[in-house]
Amino acid sequence: MSFLLLILDGLGDLPVKGKTPLSAARTPNLDRLARQGIAGLFYSVSRGIVPGSDTSHLSMFGYPPEESYPGRGPLEALGVGLELKKGDIALRCNLATEKGGKLVDRRAGRIEKGADELFRSIDGMRIDGVEIIAKHSSQHRGALVLRGKGLSAKIHETDTHGLENQNFLRCTPLDRTDSALKTAQVLTKFLKRSSEILSDHPLNKGRKLPANIILTRGPGQFQPVQPIEERYGLKSASVAGGALYKGVSRYVGMETPDIAGATGTFDTDLEAKVRYASDFLQDHDFVFLHIKAIDNASHDGNFSKKCQMIGKVDKLIPKLPKEGHIAVTGDHSTPVAKRRHSSDPTPFILSGPNIRTDKTTVFSEIEAFSGGLGHFEGKHLIPMILDLLDKSHVYGA
Amino acid sequence: MSFLLLILDGLGDLPVKGKTPLSAARTPNLDRLARQGIAGLFYSVSRGIVPGSDTSHLSMFGYPPEESYPGRGPLEALGVGLELKKGDIALRCNLATEKGGKLVDRRAGRIEKGADELFRSIDGMRIDGVEIIAKHSSQHRGALVLRGKGLSAKIHETDTHGLENQNFLRCTPLDRTDSALKTAQVLTKFLKRSSEILSDHPLNKGRKLPANIILTRGPGQFQPVQPIEERYGLKSASVAGGALYKGVSRYVGMETPDIAGATGTFDTDLEAKVRYASDFLQDHDFVFLHIKAIDNASHDGNFSKKCQMIGKVDKLIPKLPKEGHIAVTGDHSTPVAKRRHSSDPTPFILSGPNIRTDKTTVFSEIEAFSGGLGHFEGKHLIPMILDLLDKSHVYGA
Repeated sequence: MSFLLLILDGLGDLPVKGKTPLSAARTPNLDRLARQGIAGLFYSVSRGIVPGSDTSHLSMFGYPPEESYPGRGPLEALGVGLELKKGDIALRCNLATEKGGKLVDRRAGRIEKGADELFRSIDGMRIDGVEIIAKHSSQHRGALVLRGKGLSAKIHETDTHGLENQNFLRCTPLDRTDSALKTAQVLTKFLKRSSEILSDHPLNKGRKLPANIILTRGPGQFQPVQPIEERYGLKSASVAGGALYKGVSRYVGMETPDIAGATGTFDTDLEAKVRYASDFLQDHDFVFLHIKAIDNASHDGNFSKKCQMIGKVDKLIPKLPKEGHIAVTGDHSTPVAKRRHSSDPTPFILSGPNIRTDKTTVFSEIEAFSGGLGHFEGKHLIPMILDLLDKSHVYGA
Repeated sequence: MSFLLLILDGLGDLPVKGKTPLSAARTPNLDRLARQGIAGLFYSVSRGIVPGSDTSHLSMFGYPPEESYPGRGPLEALGVGLELKKGDIALRCNLATEKGGKLVDRRAGRIEKGADELFRSIDGMRIDGVEIIAKHSSQHRGALVLRGKGLSAKIHETDTHGLENQNFLRCTPLDRTDSALKTAQVLTKFLKRSSEILSDHPLNKGRKLPANIILTRGPGQFQPVQPIEERYGLKSASVAGGALYKGVSRYVGMETPDIAGATGTFDTDLEAKVRYASDFLQDHDFVFLHIKAIDNASHDGNFSKKCQMIGKVDKLIPKLPKEGHIAVTGDHSTPVAKRRHSSDPTPFILSGPNIRTDKTTVFSEIEAFSGGLGHFEGKHLIPMILDLLDKSHVYGA
């Protein structure tokens, strides 16, 4: 017996001329699951909360973010394949362009080619006894890890997301502890040295927008959590393209391969992901399959592209194993009209053995209102899965 | 005005060929209550939790088990009519059969005849200053109480439920406190002396499976709780056959008679229980009427017997007083396909004055999905009852 959780990132939406992307998309296979199974409305974190991509997944995996959220940086660092040690400070970072002391482009023209080598050129410094690891992720993005004694994540971001920032090479502490001060100082030294190295790098010669500085955001301090198999008795695996989703999966101890062609974008290799998920379902209790591009279309405000991606995912359903349980939902809503995450719950369908079927006949936000699962939250998901897999413990006797 | 809570133990189920036992059973009277009243789905503890029989009732009675659960032993001991004092250690126990140092039957052939006398033969010992009370319950079952200073419930069960256990006459502590060590030592001495007494007992002569040892489980330390009338202003009474349900009722301070013929089994005297409940409803605010046999059929995996018992209960409805409120639900689901408690919510109907009627026309799991009460939890029940009985207090002013 196994449980497949298929997350269509940013799935939930609002009606536009009476239809949401999910209700407008052609989804015969998802509708069949809805007919055979039971539906509900799902708050990945809880009602009223606008979930982040990180907190939503932690919550769904049974790690309440209010207890177990390490900040975005450590999750991204794990996602790009870095190993973290207890106490490490990890940050997301961008290659960016400055000219004459002014920030010109916080993405260095969305650099792709050579970004990997640029990150390698600044990897492995040692400053004031602190080791600094830099690794490329995708396009202009990467992760930084500061490893050493007495560090703190209580530091300002140097990436101000377009707001004026004259001091983008200077990191300042958020509190007056020695550890925050030290961390900010070490990072400032790193940003300055990196800027020198990148400015002189041959790959930047001739670039209209040279990737000559690093901007940082999402600092967090890594603390290991109890792995999901130990905590819940679920042997778990993750099939995802985006670094963050792999990072969250690794953080909670799921088997999380890097899958060639799984990119977290529109051209991701869905077939490869289905193959991995199907294989994992043979010998794992819980498999997480994440598809990102639906959220990308939502952030782009592209209704028809969102429909199209949902339709593409629908065609995958018959290729998944028929045995076991499958649940399909989103990690949050991203209405195309808002181009941002919202607190609206996502429609949820669950199909498989030993389920009370309800009267739901299609997979949509509106039909899910009256589904038999009612309205429920991320924290309820793992207990529900445990009971379906006969792995629950009776509370009391 | 009074409120009757009718609990059909283990009522909730899963569809088998499209029907649950409740939807397959003939229930014209329960359906009438559903039509006249309002329905919902009920999580006796909370969503995702697989309730025990003890925690579910504590939760429904307004005693959150995370605060007020004393372990199963004290509840069983109260249920068989023992009085408990603060600090007492109480355990459930079985008469069992050992031969040549091996456990042969953990129920001594489900002994009935003479079990009462065997328990009396080991009642009233005093070991190392600790008084030990033993009392028969039903068949091979009984309860033990250890009364003395400095005792602890942090001890292992000696009943390993069929797992190999060579040391079934030796109780070991769960932690290294003096109190746990002392309790384990006293209990070990008791188990050895009991074994000698039982082995030599004339009633065991000639028994193929002599009831020659005692196995213990569910140890707990008794702490009194504030009685329900004091805590909630509800003068309450309980009509139940099974020892546990009487025990929980007594624990929270309900008037709980032993009713001749109320056995907690298929042949229980339902008419007698209805008479008691009807009488109590004359001068009590809250009456709990518990019917166990539906759960027995569920644990046996017997769909048609479950239907039959539900049908029998349905016929009782017209015999209950017409005035006042009645709610009917289960303490948990016990799907016949699983033969164990599950976390599936139970259907709930409420009928009586000052209620918003909904569109529910029959009493079933699936119809309850869209009932007007929505999905709610055990902790909501007492506040709901208090308001219906005009006994609520405004929160604020």
